Amino acid sequence: MNAVILSVGDELVLGQTVDTNSAWLSARLTASGVMTVYHKTVADDQAAIVAAVREAAAAADLVIVTGGLGPTADDLSRQALADVLGKPLDLHPPSLERIRKFFKSLGREMPPSNRIQAMVPRGGEILDNDWGTAPGVKIRIGKTSVFVFPGVPREMSPMFDRHVFPTLATKSGRTILTETLHTFGAGESTVAEKLGDLMRRDNNPTVGTTVSGGIVSVRIRSDFPTPGPARLHLNRVEKTAAERLGPLIFGHGPTTLQEAVGRLLKQAGRTVATAESCTGGLVARLLTDIPGASAYYRGGWVVYSDALKQHELDIPASVLAAHGAVSEETVRLLALNAMRKSDADYALAVSGIAGPDGGSDEKPVGTVWIALAAGGSSAARTTTEHFQLPGDRDMVRDRAAKAALNMLRLRLLA
Amino acid sequence: MNAVILSVGDELVLGQTVDTNSAWLSARLTASGVMTVYHKTVADDQAAIVAAVREAAAAADLVIVTGGLGPTADDLSRQALADVLGKPLDLHPPSLERIRKFFKSLGREMPPSNRIQAMVPRGGEILDNDWGTAPGVKIRIGKTSVFVFPGVPREMSPMFDRHVFPTLATKSGRTILTETLHTFGAGESTVAEKLGDLMRRDNNPTVGTTVSGGIVSVRIRSDFPTPGPARLHLNRVEKTAAERLGPLIFGHGPTTLQEAVGRLLKQAGRTVATAESCTGGLVARLLTDIPGASAYYRGGWVVYSDALKQHELDIPASVLAAHGAVSEETVRLLALNAMRKSDADYALAVSGIAGPDGGSDEKPVGTVWIALAAGGSSAARTTTEHFQLPGDRDMVRDRAAKAALNMLRLRLLA
Repeated sequence: MNAVILSVGDELVLGQTVDTNSAWLSARLTASGVMTVYHKTVADDQAAIVAAVREAAAAADLVIVTGGLGPTADDLSRQALADVLGKPLDLHPPSLERIRKFFKSLGREMPPSNRIQAMVPRGGEILDNDWGTAPGVKIRIGKTSVFVFPGVPREMSPMFDRHVFPTLATKSGRTILTETLHTFGAGESTVAEKLGDLMRRDNNPTVGTTVSGGIVSVRIRSDFPTPGPARLHLNRVEKTAAERLGPLIFGHGPTTLQEAVGRLLKQAGRTVATAESCTGGLVARLLTDIPGASAYYRGGWVVYSDALKQHELDIPASVLAAHGAVSEETVRLLALNAMRKSDADYALAVSGIAGPDGGSDEKPVGTVWIALAAGGSSAARTTTEHFQLPGDRDMVRDRAAKAALNMLRLRLLA
Repeated sequence: MNAVILSVGDELVLGQTVDTNSAWLSARLTASGVMTVYHKTVADDQAAIVAAVREAAAAADLVIVTGGLGPTADDLSRQALADVLGKPLDLHPPSLERIRKFFKSLGREMPPSNRIQAMVPRGGEILDNDWGTAPGVKIRIGKTSVFVFPGVPREMSPMFDRHVFPTLATKSGRTILTETLHTFGAGESTVAEKLGDLMRRDNNPTVGTTVSGGIVSVRIRSDFPTPGPARLHLNRVEKTAAERLGPLIFGHGPTTLQEAVGRLLKQAGRTVATAESCTGGLVARLLTDIPGASAYYRGGWVVYSDALKQHELDIPASVLAAHGAVSEETVRLLALNAMRKSDADYALAVSGIAGPDGGSDEKPVGTVWIALAAGGSSAARTTTEHFQLPGDRDMVRDRAAKAALNMLRLRLLA
């Protein structure tokens, strides 16, 4: 079974609104074993909607349309469906009553323009909407079921879950299971090389990679007629991928790098502090993104000026003069002193040249030094790492902060 | 002139990623007077990409494709273009050299799989990418120009702006000028009330508002046949809007709140420091987003634990015991001591309950205290403000950080 998702709205083709409905619907369909063939977005234009519905019905067993069911003159999905069927719109009195009641519950009279929302193409079916005024509509075109829902996500989602989702599992005759593994510390091509034959296009499960913010994610998609083999093969491929990628993987599903680090710190009962120059508080912010971070994050310093590096984290002027603020020597001392002053088990220190200015031949923009100090019950061990990061200021700062978190993660795993 | 936008990627049709490229591109096209006919999203499937490109080229003068240019086996946009043209892929040696250099600048060898990114369909044109490894490709199909860019937004956006945007204005036969004014500190309905009749639907220029991250932006769109009147009316409406909104406006166009604050600090020759608890480094990060922030940002403390508040910023245990970490007394002392220890002219301190846990009847989640200490040549004046912020942890932290920056902005304007 396969599906096409259509979105209708001037605000979408004008670029004023990002369409989140299509991704949400695709994820729901994928989870039910329904393959999305394509998404298409058209304007509030009756002819365009008619053409898009016809094209979609020819391409798939199921068509989900969102948008164009409002009460105003530019809401035309209902009329377009009638056009596609070559039938008139009929008034559906129970829906009119329902809309009147909806307004009454808000202490208002129904405006006359809302009457159109109780109209349905002859032969079509009304789909109740408990979350707003516009009921949905279902029609059939040949063997294809076409569902139309309001474009407002908080009305669309529960309506889809009530009227479509329960019918899918039994109809699709397939089970599609997906899993996503997230890695940090290697480029997409390195990850692909490690995955090797798992990425062959004709495999089932299929394995693909995507990159976002330096994080290379591995998507596994298992597509079988029944749940047993789908789960079995997903697990097999996930296990093989995990073996091949090893500690590059920091989490799966919705897990972020900072969550993975926070979880490891919590499990180990350890605490961390930060001393940041070029990342200017970003490492601290990432660590404190997570609810309950106070269990493992003590706090930190944003030692942006050299004066603060000296006065607050005791970096000798001689070290700054001899090696510079962006140096192995400076980050090592920053980390050690942040650890000592905060009484944390670990401390991360980052110093670098985020750009666009401040680079030199010896230390070009993107030069970053990171230190991880480790004390506590183990012997004091401080490691440092040098990075030459690509991209603009935002990207250098983002990657430097993630690289710091990743150093701590790998240490906690070791 | 009209356009079609195609997005390519399994992660999009599987619903794992929301497509933000299409809205961004549509907004850019709209601003140039180019009408977007539709958006379409297809999987990493060569036949599907070929069919979508053919359909799009038949429907529009301009086709923008994003995605499918990566180095792995599931990146097929390049091959699909060659298919559409019925031509082979040729190696483009300067691009190969460029990709090799890109890796070299990161201190790495180019993996063999990246060689494919230097291939271009015969008769096509290579579009330089200064932000990543994959160059773009331009081909012509009949009278239609087809541009293909990487799917990563931070590569796609600057490439579009370099290779496509400058060519658009002259082609559309209309002059559409837009300006956006950004406000902070009032809700959308308050901003709309102040704008009054400027927001009438039948005006030209039109005026609309959008909200994102607590920032209410006022979009002005002037649409005339020639540049003279378009500019004249845009300026007139912008001036009126600015008069009506006064200091609520912090900037226009791409200006961020942190940029506005940085500019004012630079102009005044003043410096600032930060002391943060619930925002965990976010205020520091925002201030250091801006190149050259070292001219006015001294540094800061992330005093997440009470111990660090006491030891590093000298908050007496008695104050914490009597009033709590989230209190007017604590933020006032945090700001004063951060200012003194950093020798800055101003200091911002933030303490609050970001949630989801930690709230009480007296101090529910969203309770935030902010202090602004001011010293320097003027008499010492410290102001404090209490906020009850809506939303989840991310939202409370984001709004609290912006509210702190806005306090400093209003002080610098006064």
